Amino acid sequence: MSLLLNRRDLEFVLYELLKVDALAKTERYGGQDRALYDQTLDAAERLATEKFATHAAELDEHEPTFDGERVHLLPAVKDALDAYVEAGFMGASLDADIGGMQLPWTIAQVCAAYFNAANIATSAYPFITIAACNLLNKFGSDEQKRRYLGPLVEGRFFATMVLSEPQAGSSLADIRTRAVPTDDGHYLVTGNKMWTSAAEHDLAENIIHFVLAKIPGGPPGVKGISLFIVPKYFVNDDGSLGARNDVRIAGLNHKMGYRGTVNAVFNLGERGQCHGWLLGAPHQGLACMFHMMNEARIGVGLGAVALGATGYLHSLRYARERPQGRHPTNKDPQSPMVPIVEHADIRRLLLAQKAAVEGGLALELYCSHLIDLERTTSDAAALDRLSLLLDILTPIAKSWPSEFCLEANKHAIQILGGYGYTRDYPLERFYRDNRLNPIHEGAHGIHGIDLLGRKVAMRGGAALNALLAEFDATLAEADTCPSLAEHVTSFRAIRAGLVETTAALGAVRDGGDVALALANAGIYLDTFGHIVVGWLWLKMAIVAARGAQGASGADVDFYASKLHTCRYFFRYELGKVPERLALLARVDDTCFAMRDAWL
Amino acid sequence: MSLLLNRRDLEFVLYELLKVDALAKTERYGGQDRALYDQTLDAAERLATEKFATHAAELDEHEPTFDGERVHLLPAVKDALDAYVEAGFMGASLDADIGGMQLPWTIAQVCAAYFNAANIATSAYPFITIAACNLLNKFGSDEQKRRYLGPLVEGRFFATMVLSEPQAGSSLADIRTRAVPTDDGHYLVTGNKMWTSAAEHDLAENIIHFVLAKIPGGPPGVKGISLFIVPKYFVNDDGSLGARNDVRIAGLNHKMGYRGTVNAVFNLGERGQCHGWLLGAPHQGLACMFHMMNEARIGVGLGAVALGATGYLHSLRYARERPQGRHPTNKDPQSPMVPIVEHADIRRLLLAQKAAVEGGLALELYCSHLIDLERTTSDAAALDRLSLLLDILTPIAKSWPSEFCLEANKHAIQILGGYGYTRDYPLERFYRDNRLNPIHEGAHGIHGIDLLGRKVAMRGGAALNALLAEFDATLAEADTCPSLAEHVTSFRAIRAGLVETTAALGAVRDGGDVALALANAGIYLDTFGHIVVGWLWLKMAIVAARGAQGASGADVDFYASKLHTCRYFFRYELGKVPERLALLARVDDTCFAMRDAWL
Repeated sequence: MSLLLNRRDLEFVLYELLKVDALAKTERYGGQDRALYDQTLDAAERLATEKFATHAAELDEHEPTFDGERVHLLPAVKDALDAYVEAGFMGASLDADIGGMQLPWTIAQVCAAYFNAANIATSAYPFITIAACNLLNKFGSDEQKRRYLGPLVEGRFFATMVLSEPQAGSSLADIRTRAVPTDDGHYLVTGNKMWTSAAEHDLAENIIHFVLAKIPGGPPGVKGISLFIVPKYFVNDDGSLGARNDVRIAGLNHKMGYRGTVNAVFNLGERGQCHGWLLGAPHQGLACMFHMMNEARIGVGLGAVALGATGYLHSLRYARERPQGRHPTNKDPQSPMVPIVEHADIRRLLLAQKAAVEGGLALELYCSHLIDLERTTSDAAALDRLSLLLDILTPIAKSWPSEFCLEANKHAIQILGGYGYTRDYPLERFYRDNRLNPIHEGAHGIHGIDLLGRKVAMRGGAALNALLAEFDATLAEADTCPSLAEHVTSFRAIRAGLVETTAALGAVRDGGDVALALANAGIYLDTFGHIVVGWLWLKMAIVAARGAQGASGADVDFYASKLHTCRYFFRYELGKVPERLALLARVDDTCFAMRDAWL
Repeated sequence: MSLLLNRRDLEFVLYELLKVDALAKTERYGGQDRALYDQTLDAAERLATEKFATHAAELDEHEPTFDGERVHLLPAVKDALDAYVEAGFMGASLDADIGGMQLPWTIAQVCAAYFNAANIATSAYPFITIAACNLLNKFGSDEQKRRYLGPLVEGRFFATMVLSEPQAGSSLADIRTRAVPTDDGHYLVTGNKMWTSAAEHDLAENIIHFVLAKIPGGPPGVKGISLFIVPKYFVNDDGSLGARNDVRIAGLNHKMGYRGTVNAVFNLGERGQCHGWLLGAPHQGLACMFHMMNEARIGVGLGAVALGATGYLHSLRYARERPQGRHPTNKDPQSPMVPIVEHADIRRLLLAQKAAVEGGLALELYCSHLIDLERTTSDAAALDRLSLLLDILTPIAKSWPSEFCLEANKHAIQILGGYGYTRDYPLERFYRDNRLNPIHEGAHGIHGIDLLGRKVAMRGGAALNALLAEFDATLAEADTCPSLAEHVTSFRAIRAGLVETTAALGAVRDGGDVALALANAGIYLDTFGHIVVGWLWLKMAIVAARGAQGASGADVDFYASKLHTCRYFFRYELGKVPERLALLARVDDTCFAMRDAWL
């Protein structure tokens, strides 16, 4: 069995829960079928196993080095990415007319999950490049697409996203990088950037940087941010490479995890000769970047799930193989030891992982599928509903697995005991890698403010209402499954609690006390996430309860497992929610009222 | 301000909460006073700052290496430990008649906390040696003490504790190392050991290994374990060193954290010439070892607290210095940014750390003080009560900070954002170091079984009753503080819930379903820990409420801080307890009933 992802569970989510194969009936995905999707997943699993997993530990031990001019990376990274490009994964989800395979985004995301589970540091390079392709394809001029998009899709060029600066991380309003127009219609860019992933390497012929900067004279704050294409080497009209642009890394960041992903301090225009080309309209850079980032955020959540999932499978294998101790009722020390999977507390640590990982997977693939539905729907009302659901779910899709699949990795280490704490096993690496996820692509707290401060209130609560309508549809369906009655009762009460709590916080906000209303936004985010994942577990339980009828062979255990893990999530995790909602509804001001002098 | 520990808070716990200076009125600590204790803490803080903190990051980056014969360690480790020994810290708490300073254990523990906060990897070496001194002093023969104890106290010899084997970690009943008696009255030991910390180094002239092994023909299981003194170099009658014993490390373990602490695979008697001397009675080895381990477990908890505490102080400093973003109501992007300590969610992350760290500190020092009271009490009934309290609190003292101060370190990283994820700051190291604590000295789940399966039931619930009597005394005192009424009401309900839940689980156990009764022992442990820490917060709040009356200067804020942090702990953390108690009282069998085939 693969230790990357549970294929049966993937198929359950893709085909039984989401019915992703129905996309093949749409014009965009016409001519495709489940067999094609399965072959693609086979290929991803194989490549991830044979080329990515194989160097993950070595890459972690030998992080990139910078000699002042070039970055040196373990050669296996380039081998793996060459094979990845060769197999067509860079363009898996991209439109056929730009050289992609035009597979559903959901299928491409599952492929990404395989690569993430195998080696998240190496898979970060194409992750960013694919996001850049989407950005360029959506906002680039025809000329820009002609010059850059083809080589990116072909994997001859890689890309970066250049947002943060040393003094501006969460607060992009405060970036200082400037782009001054030249007479030639492009810009000279100067500034110092921070946290730029994949900023320098020799994995591709060229690196195209997508850079946020301000055009002097524009509006202050985020409304004055523009987006620029800044190639490492200029690209001539005939596609050949020209001189090197004035972009240099000043040094590498040395991280706790994700060590194989180059991350750099990045200087633009040190010699005044950094040339950039405006992408999209002036001052619209953040909107362009956020279009891409919202998809990337679902990708971050999925990466957290993938690390959680592979950690779960590794710890499960160990638990089944490691004999240690005896059952509490067996006092005979000369009887054989039992595998630790038989100990109840180990099962709890496994169930906790399984519930987080499978719930997180359903969350990420549900959101990915919404994107596919957007791409295949022309009805305006349906599109609006999809867009609202994505608006409200994106902060959760990014944040919930970043928190709870990190916790899953913590449990996986615990199952291995001392062995889990050593670098002889990959668990501690997964845990270190996963610790990044609550930080990048919007820190955890920022998503809390986004959810509570913007998303639930937007358009008179339209996004929340769209989600509640989904909850209600699921509840109505679950009402027809008598075996789920306990969960239906719980979830109905929690749904009511969410509405009440959100209204109470909204009243404080509307009363003018915005800061107080937002003071517990981080707890709101985690709690809302639990509710969403609980809803998805209920959806999965409905499918499983139906599937269990007449199931045979391995499916009998599979559906029983789904139903039992749902029970775990409802009783052990969702059970915590009412108290959190009550805390939030009281608008507790303890954190808000804490004074600096008391810290 | 020191970034190691908050001295004002230490003094609050030592002198206002526990009144440790009253120990100076006892015979054992006669002639001492608070001034002496404060000078000792000053010296520990200074040495920790100047010699331990200074090489912590470098040691983490340059872990020990083994060339097949010798272990190579960063020279700064020996420098620091030489200074430590020179200053007398090895013997700080040891009896004067064996060369120690005979300071209260509580004071020595605070010193240890300084060294742990500064550099937990380096401080592990004396930590183990001091524990061995206590063990030898209690169970060794006069001849053994004469030969080994003096050099250990003087720091000329260091020690190890050699328990685990590759096939026997949590399950010591299954160790296979054998000790066969020789005609000379000692034993020949053979076996393979695992996870031996400090097993090999050149930090001292000699290393004395305290080894668990079985004498052939003894009872099976834990009742057949004996304890042996196995020196690296034999010690002649005149104290000079003899030949090298047949003990060799086979290799080093490469860990996620605690990297500077040598941890090795350890072979005894590969050439059949490993000589060991029985310590204590045959087959009584585990009881001897546990006497030491119970104190060591409080030390582990304190180490977790120390890492949490220094993480808190580092993240607080960063939060006060880092400008980022503006208040939610300020929409002017041209106004200056505010330090992030002003954001409510950052305050939540700080308060969560502060509540865990200060609560954990109170827990560890309360337990340490119980040991001092044991050492200074002759009344049998009082001693019994102290021993019962230690019995029931030890699993919590070890486990609660290991879980919740690790969580605190997670929050500290989050406050620093990307910077917290880099090795340029120590936060990620604290987090890696602290991840060990739920694993060693009894894994988290083992302590859950110890607490629920043994401690609360022992002697008809005598230990639980002793603790409940402490709760009741605190509640009675808190009843006289009107400002604490909200917390008193909460805690009284929680106390009742704990009793009910424990009785419900006891009924299942007494009904014969021991395994089911223990199935949620891990949750019981965490929940009980929250209750104990809540009780200590209430105790601290009583002192603070009284101290606040008539306070002046910095004390005004200090006591207000204590009361506000208590409020945080009660509302945001202890508020979770009733739901957990209800889950436990239902004797939920979800984890217990999970089948292997469903995982």
